[in-house]
Order: sequence, then structure tokens, then C-alpha cells
Amino acid sequence: MIISGHTRLIAHLGYPTASFKAPMIYNPWLAHCEADVKVVPMGVKPEDYAALVPALFSMTNIVGALVTMPHKMATCGLVDQLSPTAAIAGACNAIRREADGSLRGDMFDGEGFVLGIKRKGFQPQGARAQVFGCGGVGSAIAASLAAAGVSTLTLFDTSLSAAEALAQRLHQHYPRLEIVLMQRDPAAQDLVVNATPLGMKADDPLPLDVSRLSPRTWVGEVVMSVEYTPLLRAAQALGCPIQRGTDMLFEMIPAYLEFFQLPVATPEQLRERAEIRY
Amino acid sequence: MIISGHTRLIAHLGYPTASFKAPMIYNPWLAHCEADVKVVPMGVKPEDYAALVPALFSMTNIVGALVTMPHKMATCGLVDQLSPTAAIAGACNAIRREADGSLRGDMFDGEGFVLGIKRKGFQPQGARAQVFGCGGVGSAIAASLAAAGVSTLTLFDTSLSAAEALAQRLHQHYPRLEIVLMQRDPAAQDLVVNATPLGMKADDPLPLDVSRLSPRTWVGEVVMSVEYTPLLRAAQALGCPIQRGTDMLFEMIPAYLEFFQLPVATPEQLRERAEIRY
Repeated sequence: MIISGHTRLIAHLGYPTASFKAPMIYNPWLAHCEADVKVVPMGVKPEDYAALVPALFSMTNIVGALVTMPHKMATCGLVDQLSPTAAIAGACNAIRREADGSLRGDMFDGEGFVLGIKRKGFQPQGARAQVFGCGGVGSAIAASLAAAGVSTLTLFDTSLSAAEALAQRLHQHYPRLEIVLMQRDPAAQDLVVNATPLGMKADDPLPLDVSRLSPRTWVGEVVMSVEYTPLLRAAQALGCPIQRGTDMLFEMIPAYLEFFQLPVATPEQLRERAEIRY
Repeated sequence: MIISGHTRLIAHLGYPTASFKAPMIYNPWLAHCEADVKVVPMGVKPEDYAALVPALFSMTNIVGALVTMPHKMATCGLVDQLSPTAAIAGACNAIRREADGSLRGDMFDGEGFVLGIKRKGFQPQGARAQVFGCGGVGSAIAASLAAAGVSTLTLFDTSLSAAEALAQRLHQHYPRLEIVLMQRDPAAQDLVVNATPLGMKADDPLPLDVSRLSPRTWVGEVVMSVEYTPLLRAAQALGCPIQRGTDMLFEMIPAYLEFFQLPVATPEQLRERAEIRY
């Protein structure tokens, strides 16, 4: 599918862009469906983001945007309507321009994460889950785990106020959920999730103390710049069931495609055609 | 060449976008050279253009922009430096971000047009040329014809002030050039150029009275939404030598590629790979 004057765009907004995977998953699928739409990386730094969003959506051939680090939380203040999921997460990873020109923000990270681990056999109902990192993606995963019925959510972030703010939003919507703040020990959890950027750089420390992991604890990852991060390798060595960052990505794309009113694929159909390179 | 997080962008700015040809010429060439750069159409209306340009150039992976109708003249006021050609033309069709972050505007339409007709055998030195349309592309062609040594330039535009402003800029740089204003009759010209949008729509009137054309007059066209416009067909029927809008385009792209510091191609190398569809 060549790029022409008829091609419509989905902007992939984030910074840095080098680890972006979505163009290599969406574009082969859209070409296969003969949908004349391309996902295009657009690197933007935090200080330029608020000015870019309205200018971007003034383009006549823009369908929407995929939003990734570090803009997921800032996006909430730049759209006209938020989905309930995005409001609880306090973050958006998708923006769509409506027929009336207004912008709607939604959030699929959490849904993608939970769909992925459920498909692998994890039962969220009544489980104890721990999320490291309470930024955009961590908040979304926490919200979706709450919606999926976990009994306890343990939240950790290097910023106490970020963890507290997320706890407050969760408590409003899930008053019976037990929330534990700033506990780092992963022992006795059914699921631990790295939702920090640790693992993107080769010399990053591990986000948690793997020596305290039980082999029956599920370990999920959001970093997708490498297929198996040091955390996932350590978890595999212990025998823990794992979920990679790209598993979450593949699971959430069907929801994104529907949001953008594009031909919907299953995760398998997407994987089959994806041209991901690490 | 797949789109990834490493892909850099050249924005193709204009409105409407449907007739854009550049993506289908640049992208196959850049893929052939394994240059990870894509030309991407970005439709923008005049009222949104001034806000879009600075936002666009805040993107970390933008190389530059190709500028087409209706933004060529407005671009002059949105860049930090203008090339001499762009200053005389009063229009830009290219923007590059310099290492210091400043924006430089240049103009290659006129150069492309003149290179093309010279290659076909037209001798501009001492010739009488007539340009219909004194907007961005008409001004650029007039400036390049003056630089190539035409003796007389006849300018016509539905706006007298546009024709007068162009005449004044030309006179400053080429005081010995004879300039005739608002003369529509194409008889006795060596070259006539349609630099108006007439010919883009099926029911457009012809830009000039073809019954007054001599068979030895060269007829050049800037419209490229159709390969042979009604004007070009009429001129061919009379036996006039012609130049199509896309001829100008192919001739100017080498200059653009150099401007963007990308691998340079000859017009033939570009044509060989182009995927133009009308």
C-alpha cells in the first residue's frame, strides 16, 4: 500500500521514538485490508506536546493518535472527552477526532494487559497483584486489574504522590478493593507487573527484587524495546509464568482498531504479519 | 522500507491533498537507497497553517517539508531565512530545519520548470515568455525564466496587485528585463506557462485562448492532477511542444533531495521507480 495524497494518518506520539513497535504491527495489517491509513511515528518532547496536539488535529487527513511515553497523562488535559477507563487511569493512549471536530481520549493499555494474561491462564478474580510504576501505563493496568476483580492491589512508585493519586482514583471507583501503598516486596503476590521504564536501557537496574519472587507468581512487563527484558529473563529462570510487553500491545490493538473505525484483527492475525525488529 | 520508530519524516503540506504526487516519487527512491525517510501527506487549510508549521518542526524526527498550494507564499513569513530564489519568488516550496533549530525556506518550482524545458530543447536566452498566474509557483517560474535570460516576461493574474508585486520584485533583480503586465493574448510568445490551478477540475475553463497560440510556441503546465490537462491536449493538437506538470516535478526533485541532504537521483532514476497514479 503506497503512500499517496489519499493516505490518512494515525500519529504515533511519544519520545523517544526508537523503540516504537506499533507502526510495524498496524501498517502490515492495514495494507493487507487495503485500508489507506498509515501509522507514522512523530517524536515530540514533553515541552512541545501541548502545542502539537491541536495543530496535529487541524490536519485534514488525520484519523487519530496513538499516545505513548511520556505523554499519556498529559493527554487527559488536551482532549475534550475522556472514556471512563481513561478517567480512572488518569491517562490516555489513544485520541480520536470526532465528526464535530472534538477530541476523545481513551486508554487500552490496561485492557490489553489483562486480556493477555487471562488468555495465558491467569485468573484475576480474587488475586493479589502488585504494580511497579504509577504513571500512565501503570495506572491503566491497575484500573483494569481492579475491574477484573483482583482483591488486593499493591502500588509502588518512586513518587509517593503519584501512587497516592492513583490509589485515590481507584478507591473512588472500587471502594471494596484493598490497596497497599509503597510496598516493594513481591513475595506472596499472584501477579507482579513492571510498569516503569526500567529495562529499556541495557544498564537499568531491575525494577524489583527478583530473589523474593515465588515461582508461582506471574510476572508481566510493559517495556517492549527488547522482547525479553532482564526482569523477564530472571522470572523465566525461576519458572514464573510471564507476559512480554508486546503481548500487551498485540492484545490491545483490536480495541484500538475498533476505536479508529478500522478493520479489526485478532492478535493472531496481527502477529502473523507484524514486522517487529528489536 | 517499513515505517518504524527510526523513520524520519518529510511533511508534504498542502490542501487539498488528493492530487499530491511527491510521496509516490520520493518514497520508492528513498526505499531503493535504504534511506529511512518517508514523505507523508499532511493536509492543512490556510487558516491552520501558521500554527501548524512551528508545531510540526518541534517533532524530533522531522527532516523538512515540501510545501504546495495554497501555502507557498505564506511560508515566507514562517521561516527564519529565505534563499535568494525564494525571496525573489515571494514563495517557498521547501522548508528545512537547520542544526540550530532555525527554519530555512527555498523554492525549486522555477528551477524544475526551466531545467525541464531546456532539456527538451527550449532556449530561454532572449525568448519572449508569458506566465498565467502570479501566485507561488508562477512567481517562481517567472523568477527562474528571468535568471535564464528571457528578454520579455508577460504576466497575467486575476489579481492585478499580485501581478504588480511580482513585476516589482523581478524589476529589482533584473532591471533590464522587459515586463508586460496583464496581457492575455498568447500570440507571438515563444513560451506560455499555465501557473494557475485551472485544469485541476474537469469543468475548469482553459487558462488562455488557445485559438491564438502559434504551433511554434512552447506550452508549459504546472497542474499535475491529470497527466495531460485540456490546455496541453489543445496545444498538442496544434503541434506545440509541451511540458507537463509532472515534468517540472521530476526535474526539481534532485534539488530538493540535495536540500534535504538525502541521496540524490536523476529525473530518470526517479521516473523509473515512481508509482504515480492519476
